[in-house]
Amino acid sequence: MTASSKTSPAGLIDHTLLLPTTTAAAIESLCEEAVEHAFASVCIPPVFVPHAARALYGSGVKVCSVVGFPCGFSTPRSKVQEAVELISSGAEEIDMVMQIGSFLSGDINFVEDEIAQVVIAAEKSPVKVIVECCYLSRAQKIEATEMVCRAGADFIKTSSGFGPSGAVVADVALLVENSAGRIGVKAAGGIRSFADYCQFVAAGATRIGSSSGLAIIEQWQQNEFASSCSKG
Amino acid sequence: MTASSKTSPAGLIDHTLLLPTTTAAAIESLCEEAVEHAFASVCIPPVFVPHAARALYGSGVKVCSVVGFPCGFSTPRSKVQEAVELISSGAEEIDMVMQIGSFLSGDINFVEDEIAQVVIAAEKSPVKVIVECCYLSRAQKIEATEMVCRAGADFIKTSSGFGPSGAVVADVALLVENSAGRIGVKAAGGIRSFADYCQFVAAGATRIGSSSGLAIIEQWQQNEFASSCSKG
Repeated sequence: MTASSKTSPAGLIDHTLLLPTTTAAAIESLCEEAVEHAFASVCIPPVFVPHAARALYGSGVKVCSVVGFPCGFSTPRSKVQEAVELISSGAEEIDMVMQIGSFLSGDINFVEDEIAQVVIAAEKSPVKVIVECCYLSRAQKIEATEMVCRAGADFIKTSSGFGPSGAVVADVALLVENSAGRIGVKAAGGIRSFADYCQFVAAGATRIGSSSGLAIIEQWQQNEFASSCSKG
Repeated sequence: MTASSKTSPAGLIDHTLLLPTTTAAAIESLCEEAVEHAFASVCIPPVFVPHAARALYGSGVKVCSVVGFPCGFSTPRSKVQEAVELISSGAEEIDMVMQIGSFLSGDINFVEDEIAQVVIAAEKSPVKVIVECCYLSRAQKIEATEMVCRAGADFIKTSSGFGPSGAVVADVALLVENSAGRIGVKAAGGIRSFADYCQFVAAGATRIGSSSGLAIIEQWQQNEFASSCSKG
C-alpha cells in the first residue's frame, strides 16, 4: 500500500447485514449509514427487502438480497421463485449461492442451468454467484469461474461468510485472472478493515461485501492524506 | 444413566446430513444406513428430496427436509412455496426455521402467521419449528414455545446446528415443561454420542436430530447389555 486513494471505498462496498438475528431496526440503521456514505448497496435478508426498498427510495443506494443463502441447497424452483419475489419487491441485485454439492459431484450442467434460470428471473438486475471457494480445489475454482461466465451471471463471489473461511486474496486473483474481464469479482467474508479492502481491490476485486463498512470508511478517512491504498 | 435400554435409539433419530457440500452419493449412503438401522427419517437438503424419496420408497423411513434453513430470513411466500414443493416431491416431514429477527423485534404475529401458513402448506405432514434457542432469553424460549403451539406445528426444535451453539439439556427441559405434551420437542445440534442422546431423551426430547446417528447406534449396541440409558 503505497499510493493514497482519494475516492471513498464506499462505492465498491455492499454494506452487509446477513445474520439470522438481524432485526428491522438494524436494517433501518444500515440503510441510513448506506445513504450517508453512498455505499453501492445494502446486502440484506430477503424478508427485509420491502423495508430497505422504502428506506432507500431515490437515494441511489441499491437493495441487494440473497437467494439460496447460505447453503445453496434449496431447489432450483425455489431459487427462481425467491429471485422473482425479491426483484418484484424492490431488490436490484441478487447474490445467489450455487449448488455446491452438485458441483462437487460433477453435475455441472445442473448447477449452470440453475444459475441461468436465476439470471433470467432477475431480469436486468445483476446476479452474483457465490461459489464458496473454501470448499473448492484450484481446478474447481477455475471451472466454477467458466461456468458462471457461461451461465450469464454478472459477478462471481468468493464466499457466503458462513463457511469455514471467507475471502482469500489468492482466490480473488485466480477468479480475476480466469474471468478475464467477462464478469466482476466480489470478495466477501471476513473483510473487516481498510487494509483488507485495499488488498482485495489490489487483487482485482470489483465489489467488496463487508459487514464492517463503517470501520473501513473510518480507517480510509484517517488514511486519506497519508499514503494508504494501492490498486497494485 | 442407570437402566439399560433394549430399544434401539434409531426410531427417535432423524439421520441428518445438511452440509453445503452434501453430494447425491452421500445422500444415497445416508438412505442405506437409515434403512439398515430403521432411523425415523433422513433429514436432508431440499435439492435431494426426490433422490431420497426414491431410495426410501416402501422402507418406512421418512424423508425430512428443511425450509428457510438455516437463517430463517427468507420470505413467508418463499417458505410456503418451498414447503409445497418439498411435500409434492416426497418429503413427509418439514423442519422450518422461524423468522428469528422478527421474533427478536417483538413481531410475534408475523412469525406465528408464517408458521401457520407453512403448517397448512405441509398438509398432514409434521412441521418442526426451529427456534434457535442460542439466540433467545429464557422468557423468549417460553414465548416461542407458546407461539409454536398456537400456530399448529407438531414439534419445536432447539437448533439448526449452524448457530453458535446447538442443543442444551436445560433448554430441552424448558421446552418440554412449557409445551406440556401439546407438541413434540426435537433436540438437535451437537448431539454426537449415545451418552448425549440419553441426556436429551431423559430431559424429555421426543425426537433427536444428529449427523452422528451411526456412532450413537454403535455405542448403544456396545452398551446394550450393560447398564446404559435411563429415561430419568
